Amino acid sequence: MRGLLTKRSGKAGLPPGTLVHIGEARTGPLRLRLTEYDAAGCEERNLASAAECLPPTDGGKVYWLDVGGIHHVQVIEQLGQAFHLHPLMLEDIVNTDQRPKADVYDDCLFFVVKMLHVADKEATIHVEQVSVVLGPRFVLSFEENGGPAFEPIRTRLKNPKGRLRNSGADYLAYALLDAIVDHYFGVLEILGERIQALEQELIRDPGPATLRTIHEVKRELLFLRRAVWPVREMINVMERGETDLIQDTTKVYLRDVYDHTIQVMDTLETFREMATGMLDLYLSSVSHRLNSVMKVLTVITTIFMPLTFIAGIYGMNFDYMPELKWQWGYPSVLLAMLFIGSVMFWIFKRKDWL
Amino acid sequence: MRGLLTKRSGKAGLPPGTLVHIGEARTGPLRLRLTEYDAAGCEERNLASAAECLPPTDGGKVYWLDVGGIHHVQVIEQLGQAFHLHPLMLEDIVNTDQRPKADVYDDCLFFVVKMLHVADKEATIHVEQVSVVLGPRFVLSFEENGGPAFEPIRTRLKNPKGRLRNSGADYLAYALLDAIVDHYFGVLEILGERIQALEQELIRDPGPATLRTIHEVKRELLFLRRAVWPVREMINVMERGETDLIQDTTKVYLRDVYDHTIQVMDTLETFREMATGMLDLYLSSVSHRLNSVMKVLTVITTIFMPLTFIAGIYGMNFDYMPELKWQWGYPSVLLAMLFIGSVMFWIFKRKDWL
Amino acid sequence: MRGLLTKRSGKAGLPPGTLVHIGEARTGPLRLRLTEYDAAGCEERNLASAAECLPPTDGGKVYWLDVGGIHHVQVIEQLGQAFHLHPLMLEDIVNTDQRPKADVYDDCLFFVVKMLHVADKEATIHVEQVSVVLGPRFVLSFEENGGPAFEPIRTRLKNPKGRLRNSGADYLAYALLDAIVDHYFGVLEILGERIQALEQELIRDPGPATLRTIHEVKRELLFLRRAVWPVREMINVMERGETDLIQDTTKVYLRDVYDHTIQVMDTLETFREMATGMLDLYLSSVSHRLNSVMKVLTVITTIFMPLTFIAGIYGMNFDYMPELKWQWGYPSVLLAMLFIGSVMFWIFKRKDWL
Amino acid sequence: MRGLLTKRSGKAGLPPGTLVHIGEARTGPLRLRLTEYDAAGCEERNLASAAECLPPTDGGKVYWLDVGGIHHVQVIEQLGQAFHLHPLMLEDIVNTDQRPKADVYDDCLFFVVKMLHVADKEATIHVEQVSVVLGPRFVLSFEENGGPAFEPIRTRLKNPKGRLRNSGADYLAYALLDAIVDHYFGVLEILGERIQALEQELIRDPGPATLRTIHEVKRELLFLRRAVWPVREMINVMERGETDLIQDTTKVYLRDVYDHTIQVMDTLETFREMATGMLDLYLSSVSHRLNSVMKVLTVITTIFMPLTFIAGIYGMNFDYMPELKWQWGYPSVLLAMLFIGSVMFWIFKRKDWL
Amino acid sequence: MRGLLTKRSGKAGLPPGTLVHIGEARTGPLRLRLTEYDAAGCEERNLASAAECLPPTDGGKVYWLDVGGIHHVQVIEQLGQAFHLHPLMLEDIVNTDQRPKADVYDDCLFFVVKMLHVADKEATIHVEQVSVVLGPRFVLSFEENGGPAFEPIRTRLKNPKGRLRNSGADYLAYALLDAIVDHYFGVLEILGERIQALEQELIRDPGPATLRTIHEVKRELLFLRRAVWPVREMINVMERGETDLIQDTTKVYLRDVYDHTIQVMDTLETFREMATGMLDLYLSSVSHRLNSVMKVLTVITTIFMPLTFIAGIYGMNFDYMPELKWQWGYPSVLLAMLFIGSVMFWIFKRKDWL
Repeated sequence: MRGLLTKRSGKAGLPPGTLVHIGEARTGPLRLRLTEYDAAGCEERNLASAAECLPPTDGGKVYWLDVGGIHHVQVIEQLGQAFHLHPLMLEDIVNTDQRPKADVYDDCLFFVVKMLHVADKEATIHVEQVSVVLGPRFVLSFEENGGPAFEPIRTRLKNPKGRLRNSGADYLAYALLDAIVDHYFGVLEILGERIQALEQELIRDPGPATLRTIHEVKRELLFLRRAVWPVREMINVMERGETDLIQDTTKVYLRDVYDHTIQVMDTLETFREMATGMLDLYLSSVSHRLNSVMKVLTVITTIFMPLTFIAGIYGMNFDYMPELKWQWGYPSVLLAMLFIGSVMFWIFKRKDWL
Repeated sequence: MRGLLTKRSGKAGLPPGTLVHIGEARTGPLRLRLTEYDAAGCEERNLASAAECLPPTDGGKVYWLDVGGIHHVQVIEQLGQAFHLHPLMLEDIVNTDQRPKADVYDDCLFFVVKMLHVADKEATIHVEQVSVVLGPRFVLSFEENGGPAFEPIRTRLKNPKGRLRNSGADYLAYALLDAIVDHYFGVLEILGERIQALEQELIRDPGPATLRTIHEVKRELLFLRRAVWPVREMINVMERGETDLIQDTTKVYLRDVYDHTIQVMDTLETFREMATGMLDLYLSSVSHRLNSVMKVLTVITTIFMPLTFIAGIYGMNFDYMPELKWQWGYPSVLLAMLFIGSVMFWIFKRKDWL
Repeated sequence: MRGLLTKRSGKAGLPPGTLVHIGEARTGPLRLRLTEYDAAGCEERNLASAAECLPPTDGGKVYWLDVGGIHHVQVIEQLGQAFHLHPLMLEDIVNTDQRPKADVYDDCLFFVVKMLHVADKEATIHVEQVSVVLGPRFVLSFEENGGPAFEPIRTRLKNPKGRLRNSGADYLAYALLDAIVDHYFGVLEILGERIQALEQELIRDPGPATLRTIHEVKRELLFLRRAVWPVREMINVMERGETDLIQDTTKVYLRDVYDHTIQVMDTLETFREMATGMLDLYLSSVSHRLNSVMKVLTVITTIFMPLTFIAGIYGMNFDYMPELKWQWGYPSVLLAMLFIGSVMFWIFKRKDWL
Repeated sequence: MRGLLTKRSGKAGLPPGTLVHIGEARTGPLRLRLTEYDAAGCEERNLASAAECLPPTDGGKVYWLDVGGIHHVQVIEQLGQAFHLHPLMLEDIVNTDQRPKADVYDDCLFFVVKMLHVADKEATIHVEQVSVVLGPRFVLSFEENGGPAFEPIRTRLKNPKGRLRNSGADYLAYALLDAIVDHYFGVLEILGERIQALEQELIRDPGPATLRTIHEVKRELLFLRRAVWPVREMINVMERGETDLIQDTTKVYLRDVYDHTIQVMDTLETFREMATGMLDLYLSSVSHRLNSVMKVLTVITTIFMPLTFIAGIYGMNFDYMPELKWQWGYPSVLLAMLFIGSVMFWIFKRKDWL
Repeated sequence: MRGLLTKRSGKAGLPPGTLVHIGEARTGPLRLRLTEYDAAGCEERNLASAAECLPPTDGGKVYWLDVGGIHHVQVIEQLGQAFHLHPLMLEDIVNTDQRPKADVYDDCLFFVVKMLHVADKEATIHVEQVSVVLGPRFVLSFEENGGPAFEPIRTRLKNPKGRLRNSGADYLAYALLDAIVDHYFGVLEILGERIQALEQELIRDPGPATLRTIHEVKRELLFLRRAVWPVREMINVMERGETDLIQDTTKVYLRDVYDHTIQVMDTLETFREMATGMLDLYLSSVSHRLNSVMKVLTVITTIFMPLTFIAGIYGMNFDYMPELKWQWGYPSVLLAMLFIGSVMFWIFKRKDWL
């Protein structure tokens, strides 16, 4: 999971619309993948430079340009000029510290989301920012590094009977969003497994490490929530925004993504409450253990203190202590000690301290 | 109660509308029960295959098809084609990890709820997802396994004077929902009994097991809340949705279910606050017990330490210790010890430590 | 205060509108009191059976029928037929586990509230459900047992100059509601006194019993809140509901009851926060006491351990221990012990542990 | 600060509009101060009885009647008749347990607020209820005892150039409200000073008294919040209420009071969070102290227990104990003890327990 | 960070619109910087007195007057007269204890924000109030001392191609607000670094100082929240207020500042939850340490108490104690003691107490 806060102060004082890449320093190469398709055909090629990216002129095909490596700021700028994008939109694209949101511009719709994925089960959760611009017949998508999230969509584009091939650019934008939200469930599953493992650990053998893990999980939940929560509002803006870029048939599908997002939020909230419950359990198991330590101490002290005191009495050196002369003194005292100790033991047994 | 999270990630990357059964693996047989009725008569039969299920052609009778076993995905698909159901609706039907919701489509109303029931008092709470499609003259209901929840409705359908027989498909859909919500009260009663038993246990003999049970109850409440809470909003959508599938006379009854749902939520919230209160009580009973353990330790130590010290003094081997020679030395010291011990005891008695 | 949850599951499966008395089993007799009044006169009589209860025919007088003993289900049913009440309304009347609410029907207004009263100061709080049906010229009120809450209204009805005699049925319905809400203040006063007594106890002598009482008070507040909170919304429905049964002049008075309800809620919330504050105080007084117990233990141990050790040294039996032969050895050691003990004592005194 | 709850139950059963003085029993004399002013002049006099208070007939001057001593119920009643006030309004005026609120009547505007003031810095916070009736050309204000809050307004009325003299009755009503809200800041300052003193005490020398003071402050904040919070809504009602009694130019000023109220609420909330933070600090300082007490106990026990054990060994009376005969036995044992003790001490030093 | 509460009570009783400087006593000199610009040119000069500040007469240029030192109350008053500002606006400008807000007046827009900046990394956070008045062709900005926050804007004004030079007064007002909100990110970064340092400290070596620092951070977050939270609503008022002072092209930029503010709030909330999590961690590390102290105590006591008791037995002076005469008595007892001690040690080892 990414650090606490991205350095952003370097930007203070610059005019709005200044393109400064904010976020983790990335060094990956630029990747420009252009896909043009309609019901008849689907063509895909890699472009070498931003100069080749021209807005579609003929209205027939859907034009999808997928840009990987948003730290190539000058490329973003060139694309912005070619597609007439608002400077603030470009600024948001290169700033990876963006909160998920959707903005409705005059001639296009812009949204930013966080893509979450896990490389392998032990690995940490990766967060990557994805920005999508939906124009009349084109979709531009911007990824930080370019993960494998959009691969299934390329596969589905190959299928000429698929709904994707037979719908417009708005359905493609929806499909991208849907692919990202679907990945959230995978992240939830891994978190759920961690929480269940933690619960086992809490019952078997809780220690300070358990506590630290609970706190780590809580913190990851905090970050996930921050990434997912605004998606709700974002989809609302897309659904109700005054734009005719999104057709009514697609809105039914957006509603479906919306339901998935609520499902994710719901699960996150449940996880949070479970983590809080585990914290309570941990703390009470700690105080329970303190209690049992104290009981051991008290039992030992309470049994041996009186016995030691008795031994101390008969260790005194008074000249006139008749018991010392008595032949059965020693065994009697030993028996008395045994009796006192047993009574004490029996009392603690009954009080359920042993 | 079902596990924390259903595996859903297997679906990531598939196009929306792909039917994949998500949830507990079920193996039960397919069950298709068709009931057709109007005021004049009521006919019920089991169908052998989805091919026999045809949408009603004559407008006269209400047509109710109850499907048990939604893991028979291809059957759901056939039904979807026969009744012209939206692919997303079908996807929601076979995904048992759905959040309760209602969707208004052009020509039908779709809602998903969780059916809760308890096999017997000791048993755990079973959650089963029920989806209902309400069309102009038909109702389709989909159950996971098919519990006994809808039996009373079949019985009521036998009664030619009943309101059910004399009303339309919307009233049947309401009756199904009402039957499900009525079952929630039974679950609440069992939870209420568990909470009362826990309270008794807390007063009589609280232990770590009590704590664990409190946490289990809290967790079950968490899950129930998640199942019940969205029903509120669902009924709102049904009542206010722009659809003429539900008549005004039926809306009064929907309002009644709405009131019941709020009652259930109210009780769940009260249970939650009671569980939190019990947690507080448990924790303070633990610290109270720590206090009494400490008091025993302190009393024993405070009484015997000075006495042992005195015995230690007269156990010293100095040549010139006049008391040792004195004839009444030993009894005097014993008396002094008795006096000191009694004073200590009296002090603790007054301080209410014993 | 009534138990946690009323058995309601027995109703699952019955058609809506089936009259089943839900709640505490009551055995009281049926009581039907009919009051008819207008500005000119007021007549009151007890009816023997439901058959005598006929809806008023002449529009002139206000007709108030007060029914005590709602467990006489068949009587409620007869009344329902006579006054053309909706089956769901009748169902709500006999179900004493109802949440306060108001329903606007075509030709009448229906509301349910909880009447709270205390028999005497030591006694527990009694909850009784009251349902009121307001029709064009009649008011039907249904009580569980029939407490004394409505007595003052009968007295006021005797006064020919009173506003009650000179207003319509809507003002009577308001007066009944007002009488019930006014009783809430009495219950609050008793709770307030209990809380003040608890605060005194917390300062003087807090024990586990105090804790239990705090929890009982918290729980009663929880139940009261559940009974009072929905009244707010109920009055809103009555005020804004699309009905002309309530005149504008009466709405000013409804607003007044609304203000009283908010006042009650406000006080309940304050009580809740005070109870929580007392819980904190109790817990910290417990840990404070643990601290002082620990200090006593530590002081005793720290003073006597070194002294006992010194005594132990001179109790050793080495042949060559010059101090033992020295004539002033014993008094010197005693003085040294006294000095060490005094220094310890002085240190603890300065550290404020004594 | 006034007690927890005012006796109000004595009123249960009385018809609405019955004037019963509810609140602290007051005995102060009646005070009726009439001020009549317009831009040309300002005249002030004390009236002897309610009979002299007549509603203004000529539309020219603003008529302000300030009534001190609302326990003179019959005077309030006379005024109510003279100014045609609604009975419920009169009831609210004499009931000092009122929640701040504004009611819009047909021909007048009524609001109730709580005036808070502090006699001197050490003194407690006094709460007094002030009701104001704003009519077309008159303002009636009702105070419990009549504090000095309105003095500055009288002074400002002397100034013929002031906005007050040149505006209508609505501006006067605003000025009264503004004077009351301005006093809240003084109360906040005193609370703020108390909180800062508490923070100093928490750092220097926290004890149970500190805890009790924190709780007292929390409780006062609770009461203040209850007095101030509804003022927000009250001003909203005044601003947006359907009345032409308040001119648009005055509404700008009302907005200003609104901002002040929010500022007060904001500060109260901050104080509450600070008080909660202090409670946490106190509790952790208590457990920190328990820790250091335990460390002292453990250090002493751990150092002296082994030494005492060694002394005990050589205090045994076995006939054949070669060490006892050895000439250097005693000094060797003493040295060994010194060594063990020093090692223990060094360990605790390193573990940072000393 | 500024103190808890600014003295404001001195104002109670004064008429609204009276200019009294509220806040930290400042002594800096007055600074009046006038900047006039349009696309063609930009002129900047320092004015000597308020008399020179005249509202712009020719509609062509944007007129920006930046006032530093708002404690020069009479200057503010003169400016108010020159620019026809509402007295309440002037009152808000000189009162530095203002909550961020925007007011829409007939002919101008007024907003107040808090400027946060940090002099150097170790230094505390400085809060300064900035008020901005936006008129048809002019912008007035008022700073307390005049920090360097607006310098970048002056630099950008030098650039004839910049959007700033080619836009109207509304864009300048936006730019000022944007500069202030951009500074918040710098403050967040420093807080984030402090929190990360605290987390390291919590893991390495938590002590009471850590706790105090956590509380300080929580308190600073509380104050920052109070300063930032209302900015959200403020921008909403500016965006939706019924004013044509802000053009639609500028509103897109305002939306951008709005997004930044939400980002800041989001981060603050995350910090708050992290601080709460750290508090929990600290408290459980304290109780964990108490546990280990108790274990040491218990281990030592449990090992040495029985041994000391045995030594005590053989230190008794009975005449007939056969073991004492036995030649191998002493070594046997020593061996027995060694055995008992080892068993105890092994038990504790297995119980994981060592």
